[in-house]
Amino acid sequence: MRIAIDAMGGDNAPQAIVEGAMDAIKDNKKLHITLVGDEHKIKQYLTSEERIEIIHTEEQIAGDEEPIRAVRRKKTSSLVLAATEVKEKRADACISAGNTGALVVAGLFVVGRMKGIDRPALSPTLPTADGRGFLLLDAGANVEADVHNLVQYAIMGSIYSEKVRMINNPKVALLNVGTEDTKGNTLMKKTFNQLSNAPINFIGNIEGRDLMNGVADVVVTDGFSGNIALKTIEGTALHVMKLFKGALTSSLKAKLAASVIKKDLSALRKEMDYAEHGGSALFGLVAPVIKSHGSSESRAIYITIQQACQMIEQNMIQTIQETVASLDIAKEE
Amino acid sequence: MRIAIDAMGGDNAPQAIVEGAMDAIKDNKKLHITLVGDEHKIKQYLTSEERIEIIHTEEQIAGDEEPIRAVRRKKTSSLVLAATEVKEKRADACISAGNTGALVVAGLFVVGRMKGIDRPALSPTLPTADGRGFLLLDAGANVEADVHNLVQYAIMGSIYSEKVRMINNPKVALLNVGTEDTKGNTLMKKTFNQLSNAPINFIGNIEGRDLMNGVADVVVTDGFSGNIALKTIEGTALHVMKLFKGALTSSLKAKLAASVIKKDLSALRKEMDYAEHGGSALFGLVAPVIKSHGSSESRAIYITIQQACQMIEQNMIQTIQETVASLDIAKEE
Repeated sequence: MRIAIDAMGGDNAPQAIVEGAMDAIKDNKKLHITLVGDEHKIKQYLTSEERIEIIHTEEQIAGDEEPIRAVRRKKTSSLVLAATEVKEKRADACISAGNTGALVVAGLFVVGRMKGIDRPALSPTLPTADGRGFLLLDAGANVEADVHNLVQYAIMGSIYSEKVRMINNPKVALLNVGTEDTKGNTLMKKTFNQLSNAPINFIGNIEGRDLMNGVADVVVTDGFSGNIALKTIEGTALHVMKLFKGALTSSLKAKLAASVIKKDLSALRKEMDYAEHGGSALFGLVAPVIKSHGSSESRAIYITIQQACQMIEQNMIQTIQETVASLDIAKEE
Repeated sequence: MRIAIDAMGGDNAPQAIVEGAMDAIKDNKKLHITLVGDEHKIKQYLTSEERIEIIHTEEQIAGDEEPIRAVRRKKTSSLVLAATEVKEKRADACISAGNTGALVVAGLFVVGRMKGIDRPALSPTLPTADGRGFLLLDAGANVEADVHNLVQYAIMGSIYSEKVRMINNPKVALLNVGTEDTKGNTLMKKTFNQLSNAPINFIGNIEGRDLMNGVADVVVTDGFSGNIALKTIEGTALHVMKLFKGALTSSLKAKLAASVIKKDLSALRKEMDYAEHGGSALFGLVAPVIKSHGSSESRAIYITIQQACQMIEQNMIQTIQETVASLDIAKEE
């Protein structure tokens, strides 16, 4: 299998990207990687050229560019060229740690939407107390979702959790303002009813405060609320960490105490690091397209590459395609 | 001034409620309090009867009751009777730590909606890194908001921050999926434009990850997203705190280190405790109605009573009423 990677996307590119790719190549003999970006810069970090191909380009999409315009105009950017490799079937999946919106647009218009799926969903896996993590979708690919979209997210998320995360009969919940069956706005009430009849293990509504308790394996929501939830988790965790750091460095006494428990604290940081669960896959496209976090270090890239391999090996796209076709859950157009 | 308090609502009722009321009465010689609930139980915690009136009732609304039905059927419940005191002008404000939905319903149908305001907003103040906190509205009173509702929330939140929280020219932001002006779903895009022309200090969009950074004093959103954000903040903070607690008790060494920095950690807990900022006021009613957190201890009740006093003394309701009337921001009906 071959994975195309935007070597220039993210805060630590190209170093973290190339190093992560090197580690993944070493571990998986069947893996081929196409690195797309500035060949000169990429080669600085390349320790071997075995099963590595480089597509040279100097064009890049910056993190703050308007996605649609950027993808349309920068056809030879590293991000768009990586997606083009998938489109033209020279690669089986692509990865970028760059502009999220641009990757969604490239996924939709370059790689292409799966037949029967109306909108793709951005799907990060976030940490839970029990270490299993939960899949949140949609985290912001589509900010105006309807009932059909949400039901499709639930089915795609369930298949991913079963095939790639190896969770038997994954528990699927709907993010809502209360746990009772009748809660929510019109969209969520209608979705609740549809999910109750979908071929998934639907466990009902989940509130924001229970997300990290491991109650559900898959949490379904519209891209607006999902984005708010995702970023609120990030912001709050960072805020509390900062407060603790402040408490642990507020005095010499505190600093000494902190040095004693350094190991415990770094274990904790790892527990909260959702890079350990891989990147945010875009479900609903004809091939795996994965967004790695902008601040990804080489380890996060390595894990995201493994995640892509797993999605390819487990034939996830085909399973989603077959399930959607058999259920006729596509919206009549 | 007189405040009616549901003495039976919340996890620690009636003890925490009565003790908080006693502390508030001691501090404010102009304050009269009406405690509504089981007289026998209330009297166990009463240390003085000065400026305290008790309305006896044995009926209560439980935390998990369906709000509309509960308010309709339990007309002599402590929560509904407290709201009735305001309706019949025997009290200037009411407070409950009980069923949030029931308090919203009682606020709307017993106390009454302010003329010109279409929907009330539930408005908690949450902690920020700089200790100022930010007001979030709506946190869930109205899960299907339109542009008019959101503009009214912004104006009410701004007035409250200026009058009660004493913030000069409060910064108002719109919760959205990105900071750029063009981000969001149709509702948020339209609201962005309207807020740009509103008589407030509108600073643009804010993302979930910046909520706790103190970027804005007032954060406006619909009740669905606001509820998700509020509960996600609660859940994440609790989760991270638990992880830290785990790290600090994982070994004898860690426990010893933790005991050394006990003071710093308890200061931190106070910093994160949003009870310090008062309860969630329901803006848009003809009198102040405040929801104190279900897990409120006496200190949280004490602070919520002070908050109600401040809202009364500062004539907040009248200012909102006049602003709404002068601006003609009410929806044409």
